[in-house]
Amino acid sequence: MTDRLSTTLSALADPTRRAILARLTLGEASVTELAEPFDMSLPGLSKHLKVLERAGLIARGREAQWRPCRLEAGPLKDVADWLEQYRRFWEQSLDRLGDYLRELQAKEKKHGRKK
Amino acid sequence: MTDRLSTTLSALADPTRRAILARLTLGEASVTELAEPFDMSLPGLSKHLKVLERAGLIARGREAQWRPCRLEAGPLKDVADWLEQYRRFWEQSLDRLGDYLRELQAKEKKHGRKK
Repeated sequence: MTDRLSTTLSALADPTRRAILARLTLGEASVTELAEPFDMSLPGLSKHLKVLERAGLIARGREAQWRPCRLEAGPLKDVADWLEQYRRFWEQSLDRLGDYLRELQAKEKKHGRKK
Repeated sequence: MTDRLSTTLSALADPTRRAILARLTLGEASVTELAEPFDMSLPGLSKHLKVLERAGLIARGREAQWRPCRLEAGPLKDVADWLEQYRRFWEQSLDRLGDYLRELQAKEKKHGRKK
């Protein structure tokens, strides 16, 4: 059995599936509408949609015959929440890079005109 | 060829690999130290470490013989940055949920004592 976070991350680990999510930020879309920009067969696209639906990243309308897809952002929030524990680590590295750049600039100011 | 973000997300889509990263937030660790809490064979662990290293999520010391592993948070920041475009969607859903709960509470206050 796969845990929820792994299912979400694995669903997101594909550029076409991420592009589908990005398209859905513009609003609901039918499968045919989604297939257009990707130049992809409907069965190929359906496979990606199933992965996204299983991960709870999209939902599909039951009522209309065209069953529009819409974005479900809940699992993305879970990934963002999980990432928060690492924020201090990437901010530390950016701080260190900033320190290093300031050091370089200071040295340049000091020695720049001696050449 | 796999894009960087897909490589990162796919490396993260495994609970053992996420647990290794969580352990490394406490500081550098040797492969033997990492193997202990996971009750995992060294070859099994090495495979996970290779996936994490290929994704740039860990780096391994070259100098010491025990080649300590350390966390590299850069790719995690890239995932967090990518997620930002979806924040308004999960905040919207939380807002809607909040509205709904407030509505329920208001109804309860109004009708609660009529039973």
